[in-house]
Amino acid sequence: MQFLLILNILGFLHIFLALTMLLPLAVSFLYGDGCSNAFIYSILATLLAGSVLYWAFPAQKKELSHRDGFAIVTLGWVFVALFGSLPFLLSETIGSFTNAYFETMSGFTTTGATILPTVEQLPRSILFWRSLIQWLGGMGIILFSIAILPLLGVGGMELYKAEVPGPTPDRIKPRIAETARVLWKVYLLISCLEVLLLCAGGMNLFDSLCHTFTTLATGGFSTRNLSIESYASPYCEGVITVFMLVAGINFSLHYQLLRGNIKGFLKNGEMQFFLAVFMAATLAIAINLRLHLFDSVVTSFRHASFQAASILTTTGFSSHNFAAWPFLAQFILLILMFVGGCTGSTGGGIKCFRIMLLFKQGYREIYRMIHPRAVVPVKLGGRSVSSRIVEGVWGFFFLYFFLFALNTLVMTLLGSDLVTSISAVASCIGNIGPGLHAVGPAANYGHLPALGKWCLTFCMLLGRLEIYTVIVLFVPEFWKK
Amino acid sequence: MQFLLILNILGFLHIFLALTMLLPLAVSFLYGDGCSNAFIYSILATLLAGSVLYWAFPAQKKELSHRDGFAIVTLGWVFVALFGSLPFLLSETIGSFTNAYFETMSGFTTTGATILPTVEQLPRSILFWRSLIQWLGGMGIILFSIAILPLLGVGGMELYKAEVPGPTPDRIKPRIAETARVLWKVYLLISCLEVLLLCAGGMNLFDSLCHTFTTLATGGFSTRNLSIESYASPYCEGVITVFMLVAGINFSLHYQLLRGNIKGFLKNGEMQFFLAVFMAATLAIAINLRLHLFDSVVTSFRHASFQAASILTTTGFSSHNFAAWPFLAQFILLILMFVGGCTGSTGGGIKCFRIMLLFKQGYREIYRMIHPRAVVPVKLGGRSVSSRIVEGVWGFFFLYFFLFALNTLVMTLLGSDLVTSISAVASCIGNIGPGLHAVGPAANYGHLPALGKWCLTFCMLLGRLEIYTVIVLFVPEFWKK
Repeated sequence: MQFLLILNILGFLHIFLALTMLLPLAVSFLYGDGCSNAFIYSILATLLAGSVLYWAFPAQKKELSHRDGFAIVTLGWVFVALFGSLPFLLSETIGSFTNAYFETMSGFTTTGATILPTVEQLPRSILFWRSLIQWLGGMGIILFSIAILPLLGVGGMELYKAEVPGPTPDRIKPRIAETARVLWKVYLLISCLEVLLLCAGGMNLFDSLCHTFTTLATGGFSTRNLSIESYASPYCEGVITVFMLVAGINFSLHYQLLRGNIKGFLKNGEMQFFLAVFMAATLAIAINLRLHLFDSVVTSFRHASFQAASILTTTGFSSHNFAAWPFLAQFILLILMFVGGCTGSTGGGIKCFRIMLLFKQGYREIYRMIHPRAVVPVKLGGRSVSSRIVEGVWGFFFLYFFLFALNTLVMTLLGSDLVTSISAVASCIGNIGPGLHAVGPAANYGHLPALGKWCLTFCMLLGRLEIYTVIVLFVPEFWKK
Repeated sequence: MQFLLILNILGFLHIFLALTMLLPLAVSFLYGDGCSNAFIYSILATLLAGSVLYWAFPAQKKELSHRDGFAIVTLGWVFVALFGSLPFLLSETIGSFTNAYFETMSGFTTTGATILPTVEQLPRSILFWRSLIQWLGGMGIILFSIAILPLLGVGGMELYKAEVPGPTPDRIKPRIAETARVLWKVYLLISCLEVLLLCAGGMNLFDSLCHTFTTLATGGFSTRNLSIESYASPYCEGVITVFMLVAGINFSLHYQLLRGNIKGFLKNGEMQFFLAVFMAATLAIAINLRLHLFDSVVTSFRHASFQAASILTTTGFSSHNFAAWPFLAQFILLILMFVGGCTGSTGGGIKCFRIMLLFKQGYREIYRMIHPRAVVPVKLGGRSVSSRIVEGVWGFFFLYFFLFALNTLVMTLLGSDLVTSISAVASCIGNIGPGLHAVGPAANYGHLPALGKWCLTFCMLLGRLEIYTVIVLFVPEFWKK
């Protein structure tokens, strides 16, 4: 472990965080909402902490090891959420530290679970910051999964390298800093496009910005109590549906598309699977809604496609109170929660490529029963996948469900009923947002006991960092020389 | 596929089934409950069908192939449940064919789910038959998993061969017929012991016999509406708790124990894991019950141990209405549902050895992150497990959850609410019996739509035959030459 190097990088991260707070500060001045002092103090505190770390521990020329990578990423998210919660606390919009940390972690992990019963009374700059941290978290996670995870070899993520077809020998820019710059541009470009389209539909600039931030991060925080439902605009719902799907697809594919490699984009197996799941779910839910809830086919498809995209990409926006939908539609949404987005997207969940691999291996086992001596490789995108990667995916799958059970146990111990406990943990570990019953789409997480909130905060971090990255820090061996 | 040989063996099975019906016929004569005609006609029909198949397709000297094995086992269970349902239909104790087939399949698969709201008014011979089919199903499943599955190499079951330590070079008798005879004796001996102990506690002989049948099969059918709770006897609960645990352990281990190999019995890893899970769950539930429900530590431990054993072994007896227990206790019971018994026991669920392997591989993946170049074998019982077997277990795990989701989808489509659908499918695929909400311990499956009952009947068969055995029949390749 190179502790000094880790602290140096964390310092850099906090200097960057402080700079991003200038944006909500500007919003605060613009609207004169009285929160400018809260942001100024937050910026100073974050800048001070970052600068001390950065300059006290100057960067060394050593290479980062696997272990350093895990520590930087996990500690990075933990501390950024700490300093990111300062504006909520200093503006007194969120009273307790537990609540403020929960809300901020929910933001940076792009989960979208909230402890706030209503949001419309919040100062503009605070609403802006709440949306912006999701956008920043989304950018962080794209970088993490495209540029860092494949290097670390976590939970079958090595596969990514083989999966994304490259347009030229350089594939995606090899070095982290350069990858960051390219993806940042793609992310920014798509964001601008969504803001323009939402403004064109009559949404004001402020709301368009905030909803774009949380759409592209598949985060789901809204500036309205009723989420997207409050606009009652099929056009805006359509735009957001499309951009949620865009955010659920690998951003390095978008980069390829922008460079003109349409064929590479369309031939990507994970993207095809992702869209196939979306379309199948939309069709099934739409038929179910048409038969039991709505008179119009168009309305059925409108809400089915919006909600399927919102849950599959783990965004968590709602255009209708789906807790009152027929049971089949509800169960399909529950399954989508576990599937999630593509590798290298901002979506959470188990991820499409893992589900694909599990299906393929399940089928292989059946094939092997009929042909016991056959050697059958598991293939993805035309290439056979090494058993090491398949094992990584299984390990991930098991840990996901094991930690899901363990955290649900804690929630029941703290007195939450079964459906609330199960859905709250599923929602937080999958970075979705709303759960069911006491934490359903019409409710919030504010009434849970403090320990329960910390448990769920931990779940968000676990899910966002692909489980392994966090868990490995709890293994004593990790800290040995 | 050797269809003639398959029909011949099915014929033999039905002749045997007809003979077992002589027992409830004797009970019917003894109590004069008016069902003797129902049993006589059932015996004749079953005997006729069996004889025609047996003599029309004389046994050939060919070896059974993998495929023949799958077909015989699956078709065997399907047809035995068909003829086994005749006494219910002919005695008019169960009106519809759907209900009668559901109840009989629930018996032969040792599930214990029932469509009957009350049982105490049923004729004695029918109650006896209902319990006896569980006992027969239990014997069938021990044979299937100890003598047949390892030969077929299904879902990691090959592992069994390496896992059970043999007392002498012959391990367990190699040929199926001889294995059958040995295990039959062990099963009978343990059954006699339980009957004696229950009678000694004041339970009448009839009830002792019926409950012994359903304890050793981990089936859970009772002759009382309130299950074991109706006896209000801590002694009987204690006896049944011990014998449920016995039934949840590999019967070839019991055979070894009877031959004096105590060390081999105690050193078995799967058995240790099974008992460790039982004790941990009992302790946690007992503390939870003592704090929130009962004043007495003894009462808390009594109900905790009974219910933990009942659910872990997938028996489904109840000594208390656990649907009203605190949430933590309920959630622990829910987890136990998925764990299940040991290989070669009558218990259902995923099975202990699979859970152990999943844990070990989950840990290995974490270890590999820290030591990326290390070669770490997964070990069980001191021997390293081949990656082929580990893959078989993962395939099983995935298919289990995939089919669980698919069948739950069907149940919601038919209009059952989420908790009812999820718990009914979990309970039937795990061969447990009671579910939650509309199919909870105080309710039954009778009110579900006919299609839902067929869906759950299919789940029972799937779970009992380790998924693969049934699923492979649906793969077109299976039927090709």
